[in-house]
Amino acid sequence: MRGNTFGSLFRLSTFGESHGPAIGGVLDGCPAGMRLDPTAIQVELDRRRPGGTPLGTSRTETDAVEFLSGMIADPEAIHRSDQKTLGTPIAFLIRNADARSHDYDQLKDVYRPGHADLTWEAKFGLRDHRGGGRSSARTTAACVVGGAIARQLLASEGIEVDAYVSRVGEVALETPVEQLDLSGRWNDPVRCPDPATAKRMAAFIEQVRSEGDSIGGVVSCVVRGVPPGLGEPVFDKLEADLAKAMLSINACKGFQIGNGFGAAHLRGSENNDAFAPGYRRDPEVRIDPYTVSRAAIRTETNRSGGVLGGISNGEDLLFEVAFKAPSTIAKAQRTVNTNGEAITLEASGRHDPCVVPRAVPIVEAMTCLVLADHLLRHRTSRVGPPVVIGAVEG
Amino acid sequence: MRGNTFGSLFRLSTFGESHGPAIGGVLDGCPAGMRLDPTAIQVELDRRRPGGTPLGTSRTETDAVEFLSGMIADPEAIHRSDQKTLGTPIAFLIRNADARSHDYDQLKDVYRPGHADLTWEAKFGLRDHRGGGRSSARTTAACVVGGAIARQLLASEGIEVDAYVSRVGEVALETPVEQLDLSGRWNDPVRCPDPATAKRMAAFIEQVRSEGDSIGGVVSCVVRGVPPGLGEPVFDKLEADLAKAMLSINACKGFQIGNGFGAAHLRGSENNDAFAPGYRRDPEVRIDPYTVSRAAIRTETNRSGGVLGGISNGEDLLFEVAFKAPSTIAKAQRTVNTNGEAITLEASGRHDPCVVPRAVPIVEAMTCLVLADHLLRHRTSRVGPPVVIGAVEG
Amino acid sequence: MRGNTFGSLFRLSTFGESHGPAIGGVLDGCPAGMRLDPTAIQVELDRRRPGGTPLGTSRTETDAVEFLSGMIADPEAIHRSDQKTLGTPIAFLIRNADARSHDYDQLKDVYRPGHADLTWEAKFGLRDHRGGGRSSARTTAACVVGGAIARQLLASEGIEVDAYVSRVGEVALETPVEQLDLSGRWNDPVRCPDPATAKRMAAFIEQVRSEGDSIGGVVSCVVRGVPPGLGEPVFDKLEADLAKAMLSINACKGFQIGNGFGAAHLRGSENNDAFAPGYRRDPEVRIDPYTVSRAAIRTETNRSGGVLGGISNGEDLLFEVAFKAPSTIAKAQRTVNTNGEAITLEASGRHDPCVVPRAVPIVEAMTCLVLADHLLRHRTSRVGPPVVIGAVEG
Amino acid sequence: MRGNTFGSLFRLSTFGESHGPAIGGVLDGCPAGMRLDPTAIQVELDRRRPGGTPLGTSRTETDAVEFLSGMIADPEAIHRSDQKTLGTPIAFLIRNADARSHDYDQLKDVYRPGHADLTWEAKFGLRDHRGGGRSSARTTAACVVGGAIARQLLASEGIEVDAYVSRVGEVALETPVEQLDLSGRWNDPVRCPDPATAKRMAAFIEQVRSEGDSIGGVVSCVVRGVPPGLGEPVFDKLEADLAKAMLSINACKGFQIGNGFGAAHLRGSENNDAFAPGYRRDPEVRIDPYTVSRAAIRTETNRSGGVLGGISNGEDLLFEVAFKAPSTIAKAQRTVNTNGEAITLEASGRHDPCVVPRAVPIVEAMTCLVLADHLLRHRTSRVGPPVVIGAVEG
Repeated sequence: MRGNTFGSLFRLSTFGESHGPAIGGVLDGCPAGMRLDPTAIQVELDRRRPGGTPLGTSRTETDAVEFLSGMIADPEAIHRSDQKTLGTPIAFLIRNADARSHDYDQLKDVYRPGHADLTWEAKFGLRDHRGGGRSSARTTAACVVGGAIARQLLASEGIEVDAYVSRVGEVALETPVEQLDLSGRWNDPVRCPDPATAKRMAAFIEQVRSEGDSIGGVVSCVVRGVPPGLGEPVFDKLEADLAKAMLSINACKGFQIGNGFGAAHLRGSENNDAFAPGYRRDPEVRIDPYTVSRAAIRTETNRSGGVLGGISNGEDLLFEVAFKAPSTIAKAQRTVNTNGEAITLEASGRHDPCVVPRAVPIVEAMTCLVLADHLLRHRTSRVGPPVVIGAVEG
Repeated sequence: MRGNTFGSLFRLSTFGESHGPAIGGVLDGCPAGMRLDPTAIQVELDRRRPGGTPLGTSRTETDAVEFLSGMIADPEAIHRSDQKTLGTPIAFLIRNADARSHDYDQLKDVYRPGHADLTWEAKFGLRDHRGGGRSSARTTAACVVGGAIARQLLASEGIEVDAYVSRVGEVALETPVEQLDLSGRWNDPVRCPDPATAKRMAAFIEQVRSEGDSIGGVVSCVVRGVPPGLGEPVFDKLEADLAKAMLSINACKGFQIGNGFGAAHLRGSENNDAFAPGYRRDPEVRIDPYTVSRAAIRTETNRSGGVLGGISNGEDLLFEVAFKAPSTIAKAQRTVNTNGEAITLEASGRHDPCVVPRAVPIVEAMTCLVLADHLLRHRTSRVGPPVVIGAVEG
Repeated sequence: MRGNTFGSLFRLSTFGESHGPAIGGVLDGCPAGMRLDPTAIQVELDRRRPGGTPLGTSRTETDAVEFLSGMIADPEAIHRSDQKTLGTPIAFLIRNADARSHDYDQLKDVYRPGHADLTWEAKFGLRDHRGGGRSSARTTAACVVGGAIARQLLASEGIEVDAYVSRVGEVALETPVEQLDLSGRWNDPVRCPDPATAKRMAAFIEQVRSEGDSIGGVVSCVVRGVPPGLGEPVFDKLEADLAKAMLSINACKGFQIGNGFGAAHLRGSENNDAFAPGYRRDPEVRIDPYTVSRAAIRTETNRSGGVLGGISNGEDLLFEVAFKAPSTIAKAQRTVNTNGEAITLEASGRHDPCVVPRAVPIVEAMTCLVLADHLLRHRTSRVGPPVVIGAVEG
Repeated sequence: MRGNTFGSLFRLSTFGESHGPAIGGVLDGCPAGMRLDPTAIQVELDRRRPGGTPLGTSRTETDAVEFLSGMIADPEAIHRSDQKTLGTPIAFLIRNADARSHDYDQLKDVYRPGHADLTWEAKFGLRDHRGGGRSSARTTAACVVGGAIARQLLASEGIEVDAYVSRVGEVALETPVEQLDLSGRWNDPVRCPDPATAKRMAAFIEQVRSEGDSIGGVVSCVVRGVPPGLGEPVFDKLEADLAKAMLSINACKGFQIGNGFGAAHLRGSENNDAFAPGYRRDPEVRIDPYTVSRAAIRTETNRSGGVLGGISNGEDLLFEVAFKAPSTIAKAQRTVNTNGEAITLEASGRHDPCVVPRAVPIVEAMTCLVLADHLLRHRTSRVGPPVVIGAVEG
């Protein structure tokens, strides 16, 4: 009930303070017998860590993940490090190597604007002032590990999750996702797939940083290969669980799926997606006979963002996530100390000028967790085998 | 796991198909000894029901709620119908009186664009075609009952939840919430607190209806009197649970808190709310010594929408919810039947041209459920009594 | 968290006070597309109700169950009343027809020995004195309904659950279960499958009743056709969930599986069940390819009661449940009233002299709930299809 | 859903295979601001470990627990190592130092009688053959850590949990608990508080060991200082959660509370505990005003074992737990290999001849977890402050 666990059947629990001995997590519910590639997990973790993009903070954690349980060496391994999941909890930790707690001593008696210092004390009566403790964005590293495992489960169903930066302040990428080549975005420090826009974004971030300020942005996400039928019809709608997942990320202020707030401007005749005959999923993709349906029906457009009534319809999931500017800035700010006295705060030490490039792998990770959970939940939805909807042919 | 339960300690489970015998719910976790006024619950239910606003559908359910358990006549009652909660599940039902199932016979073999017909079949292998079954908006009536009970718990802490329509298509209310008088909005069919804007919205809805079409909109919500400390720091952030609650409402496509997507455009120096000394909560309001803190610190602005790091800071909660246009329209639409053949659908029968006026009580209900849950969760956050933050005086 | 919900994926929530308007429940998680025979549910409910055995109380509820949701008429029905589950919550209620609350007015200010009056007040600060409110055994009727639906799911896997009375006070049935014919036990008022022992038990119960007293007993349960692999290895061991289920039944004081407390007396060489080759399950029984394994290995004996390390091994589940004598007796007892004064209580009104005959259908119902839950949980245990263990042949 | 988490508000999740890198756990929900003494936790852990009693296996793990999160050095510490809880997850691990996996290579292709080898494969399709993997009793070390933290929370309420060995095979301790001095039991290798009986038990265990065999036993537990009001009235009865906790311990076969199976032999007039005026709890004990009630009423006897209707009545909790003999014995046994062929197994390597001495700290730990959980759950049971039951005076 303290909100450190995410998911119902595919459950990630995370732990750890920014400047304690370690952060980490326990992933419970991953099915047994899945081939697991730990190297691929480390790759994703590297994308999130501060040094992962030149635009991030200068904190240089190596963020090496150590697995403690839940797997055994795979006798039929392709890579030397390949493991098989045992069906037991997969526990992992990441040591806090570069924890300069003394940087934070000056903050012990101050409530930083935009931070959780005051609210944390209101809730718990005390707080870990060292780097924000558990309210630090560092905790999201554990989500990235969990999400990277989820992604390996999704991959076996042909599901691909790709996020990218679509806005930094006033610099926006307006190109529709179908026209984007997402393959090279990890090579770009901003994680924007359009090189020209990425360049403008990077220049803008540098300028904001030089002014001792920070800037907000938007991350967009597309999920391809989603089978129809994932999500629950009432409270645990797929979009509701995605919204919760995204708003759980530090600094997130908004979520929209499909045309989102734009839908508020449209008429039903403009907004509805017409159905049409035709397979959506690649017939070459293996579909787990124990889990999912395939639809012989698709929509002509995808304004809904891939969900109808809380359940995936087989089209791509499309959603956007808004992030505020990081709260820690070098500029002077008015605030209050723990004696209740008004003071002026000028932060020193490392900080991010813009969170969205590093938020990209986190958005992906949380998305993978939501989908893996619903994939397992879907296995219990009916008595017989999965169905083919509107099938005119095999 | 089928997503029919909302909340962790203050839990609402709902049941019922649109055209089955009844809909209803079970509210578990409401503390014992609370005075309960069933009449006030019916008032809220009446605001949601189709006939509750002249702009809704013509389906005329009386929607009379019957309570089955969880309460006993209050010996110290003020009103004759006053009850006391027993601490046991509060079960209730609403009979489906006006269930013209035959209106839906023509839809048995059709997948309606924008509806859950196809996705439901992909998930469950069968569907209740009568009025959408459980994916009907009628199921939200049970949320309104649960939310109305939650509201009575919140009221004892001085917490008030008020939502209103702030956009219908291109007709928007731009006035900041502090300058609005929300008291009269229930008298207005659009539930917009500004009479002039409300009139323009109503005219627009009528025009859209006359064209056989429908229109989307936005509901805004303000929560006053929230004590600091509600919400959890990692996955069950207060804004994350609110986002999930809102996206669980039928036709919802987006959620933003504080300046939301607007925050993506701002710098940290523009977006941070400075702290300043000063009590926010009215000292006259009784504060439950078993639950909540009070803060002697407030923010100068409220761009965050009342949350910092997932936890309330004592300022008003401010958020917005986007709704798409209702999917059922009279205009002809292309779709597919259950044989996979392309057809043209022209819907007849009753339907809403705009969902936002009726969504207002639902947004409030879901908000009440989230806050009541976090109020109870907060009781277990620390060993000693609640704290006063930054207290220079009593 | 108020403990009114049982199960994780196959979840029963119950509600209702003994003398309120109704009792009932909501079963969530039953897979869609299951044929449901409501008549069979009523039959089980009739076995539990006071008039169901001549040895019970004289309260004559008809206990007619009304279903409110979650099903639709089965187009391929065998019996006219056959339904198909929709995958949505199955809500039901049983009206409290014969609620003579005035019988209990004398108990308003008294703490009855052996009852929950005092503990209820310590917990909730108030109690419903009318017939024990929600601590009445009447609440178990909702469990019987939920269990009867679970049984229909189990039946499709070839799983059969049978309980019977094996002890009333000093009158015990010592015959091993393999030698018993359980088919006729419902015709016997004591629900003991051995006619001679049943007769002695009945006579003993009558004698105890005539003396204004009551008596305890034991219910034994056997589950046949359990596939290997049900249960979880650490906290949710199959026997742990069964133990919790049984101790949740009113008046239950103990649970043992296999040779239970007898195992404390034995050596490992006496207690271990040797493995031997050979199929246990009837090859004619259809096995759901989406769920369960079959074992080509069996044990020579079954001292373990069908579980190893918390997981079923394919042998029959065997367990016993101890019940205390009903607390309400006509004999005078010392107690205390709500003013804290010592008084003497002589109960009048209807009451059971022995609870075990009526506990038989409740033990079965709770067992069915546990197994149905683990059957669904099992569906998510591994990535591929179920396996055949130790298979030398098909 | 994989059963690796125990508790609802005070939740322990455990992880780790017997011969993997480490075992450990995450305790979530421990209230913030509690003083935590890590040294006391290590003391309890040492009682469970194989070398903790000379009667155990010869595996010599040091079992040093390392804490990773959830605490901060206590500025007002009494002992140098004192910590304060932060209200965040307390993660910990214990490295597997002495993991001689090769001892188990011979068992890779064998299903050991009484072990979970076969059932594990039926469930997950593969198993970790190294020492039983996660079905090893080693996993209970994580429970002991979690329980030791729970105990520190209970201590602040004056609640004490004490278990002891009351039977080994036919050697039984019949002395009532009130007449026992439990203080010295940790000094005794059998953990039986009566020196003479302890000596006979030890001699019997040695004899059984010398014969290459093993033996079962019973652990008894008493909980003193329990406030009335803990437990939930229907499914999560205090005794039901205790039963589940106990049956979750490896090798447990039975649970009984109060007179347990003995209650089946008694009449109501023999079994009911009469109420009498009088305080039970020591008035000197501080009672948390945010949590618990005190009762001015007690029972004359305690046959119920301290619970009425699933809720504690303020008397001592009394229950017993039956354990089977360890399944690993040196004697030859018939079994089957993974090819389905009958073979004879003669185990070598270290093993326990009797599990009950080492089960004592585990029974205590699981009991502490159950009580801490219900203590927190109790905080949300009513709107006002706790009540004094039957109070005629302060």
